[in-house]
Amino acid sequence: MKKVAVLGAGSWGTALSIVLADNGHDVRLWTHRKEQADSINSTHKNERYLEIMIPEKIKAYHEMDQAIKDADVILLVIPTKAIRDVCHELNTILKHDAVLIHATKGIEPGSLKRVSQMIAEEMDHYSYEDIVVLSGPSHAEEVAQRQPTTVTVAAINDQNAKVSQDLFINEVFRVYTSNDVIGIELGGALKNIIALGAGISDGLGYGDNAKAALITRGLAEITRLGTYLGANPLSFLGLPGVGDLIVTCTSVHSRNWRAGNLLGKGNPLEDVLEKMGMVVEGVRTAEAAYQFAKEENIDMPITAGIYQIIHHNKKPKEVVEQLMNRDKREEMDDLASLIKNRYAR
Amino acid sequence: MKKVAVLGAGSWGTALSIVLADNGHDVRLWTHRKEQADSINSTHKNERYLEIMIPEKIKAYHEMDQAIKDADVILLVIPTKAIRDVCHELNTILKHDAVLIHATKGIEPGSLKRVSQMIAEEMDHYSYEDIVVLSGPSHAEEVAQRQPTTVTVAAINDQNAKVSQDLFINEVFRVYTSNDVIGIELGGALKNIIALGAGISDGLGYGDNAKAALITRGLAEITRLGTYLGANPLSFLGLPGVGDLIVTCTSVHSRNWRAGNLLGKGNPLEDVLEKMGMVVEGVRTAEAAYQFAKEENIDMPITAGIYQIIHHNKKPKEVVEQLMNRDKREEMDDLASLIKNRYAR
Repeated sequence: MKKVAVLGAGSWGTALSIVLADNGHDVRLWTHRKEQADSINSTHKNERYLEIMIPEKIKAYHEMDQAIKDADVILLVIPTKAIRDVCHELNTILKHDAVLIHATKGIEPGSLKRVSQMIAEEMDHYSYEDIVVLSGPSHAEEVAQRQPTTVTVAAINDQNAKVSQDLFINEVFRVYTSNDVIGIELGGALKNIIALGAGISDGLGYGDNAKAALITRGLAEITRLGTYLGANPLSFLGLPGVGDLIVTCTSVHSRNWRAGNLLGKGNPLEDVLEKMGMVVEGVRTAEAAYQFAKEENIDMPITAGIYQIIHHNKKPKEVVEQLMNRDKREEMDDLASLIKNRYAR
Repeated sequence: MKKVAVLGAGSWGTALSIVLADNGHDVRLWTHRKEQADSINSTHKNERYLEIMIPEKIKAYHEMDQAIKDADVILLVIPTKAIRDVCHELNTILKHDAVLIHATKGIEPGSLKRVSQMIAEEMDHYSYEDIVVLSGPSHAEEVAQRQPTTVTVAAINDQNAKVSQDLFINEVFRVYTSNDVIGIELGGALKNIIALGAGISDGLGYGDNAKAALITRGLAEITRLGTYLGANPLSFLGLPGVGDLIVTCTSVHSRNWRAGNLLGKGNPLEDVLEKMGMVVEGVRTAEAAYQFAKEENIDMPITAGIYQIIHHNKKPKEVVEQLMNRDKREEMDDLASLIKNRYAR
């Protein structure tokens, strides 16, 4: 039995708290909103986010110092844009050793920094090597319903990865380990670009063939960028890569797919974002990836096309026509040489 | 303009004939059934297989020697189990040079031979190196409707691959080349095992997380077998690998998914096959792959589970529980070493 503080009581933080409570751990769920903490403690539901009942032994807190008291493990499940602020607060109050895990999918616009890098920069007593990331194909609702789910935990520090695996694994939640933190984090973040594209394709009225092509060629493209940034290309073949991509691109529950779908139907970006009423990570990620790929001369035609649709009001149909009429190519030309370079050393 | 004989007038052969006719080629569509040939020529429809009108310049034949007369290219699009018979007949009447392409997904049960190997064995004047395979994520209906589609053509003989690319490529049908015949053929055949599994998962009432896990871990498993059989593991990351897998596992039109769905709902195999009323390739492929993997000691737990459901009436739910409770693992352990071995030479 471990004491685990879960920082962030959205749907994913709550679902992971349920897994931890099922495994017998002492779970404290933190939210910065007092009324949410009170409501969870009195009703054992987190109404805005999940329909399911929460085990009574999960206690909600709105004061961070109480939630993290004596905690063996601290799990961060907060939006990318709040990571630095929450870690800054955590850094000032955390006075003991605890394993730090995060389950946030995103990258920092501009800097292109990953979440573990942002955390390491904010936390005085943690090095990047010690931070663990948890990622994989996982709708929170299904995890809360104890539907079979698989995820990967990755850390440079082997021991921390194994501790995290033991913490979460059970008969319906299977956990694999990896040491490719870069690949696992980038897979989860970059897949949102392709989910936007899949939504655009469906919004245009194209069929399964077009969407499969977009997902497959999109996967090759984010693998190329990821490998350039130091990831192991194989990670994109795994659960936090292709697995997460499939879930995000084929589910109408995906926020990025829904935004893309509206774009494909001809709505301009401002209207789409207003209709969605929440952050669409893929929009910011597409812009960041496009700028970086342009500067570094990395071939990302699908990302470039999505960027043009979003920021230059280019017609989606024109972008598709352009993509279909590029030069004739070998399928695996550049990816093969990337992987070859990695292993031929 | 080339003369192309398309042998096999099912939905896929007809759809590819339409692509070829759109590109200005002289297309002869062969079927062994006279009444089907007559009906196509008089109605310009192939009613049993496709809803769409066929260009009038496509002529149907039921006598093979007329269809192949002076043909520059012969395209075989027939079921795996008919390949040897049709090639045997073709071999006796073909007296001139023609490029041979096939677009058939399957392997020979027992021998585990691929379609190009079977063709080479039956055709006296062709070597395996010259035969081209065309594969990718492609519902025939969507191709016939000129929906955007991408495929890969592969041959050891570079020149033949390029001729095939030029033959098919147009603004809605994008064609990539590859020289990994083994990987392209095995991707198309082995993915049917995983489609059965995806159907079983859905039939059991499991959600998107479980299906994404099954597809991803299934992809790792068929990549392992494919690499053992000489394929380039990267091909499984491409259109005829992950792309085709996505189309087959997420579409209710897929025959293998439908069969798996019925199995997952508790129907025994005999009833499922009777209800389907047609060949379910995945059933035979799963058995062939299971036997081979067992003999050669290749780790294929999902295939083994599907085999047990099909042939030993094991409860699907028990198989899932078993898969979720295997030893704790690194995600990419064996696949990484396979790829490393390939490139470290």
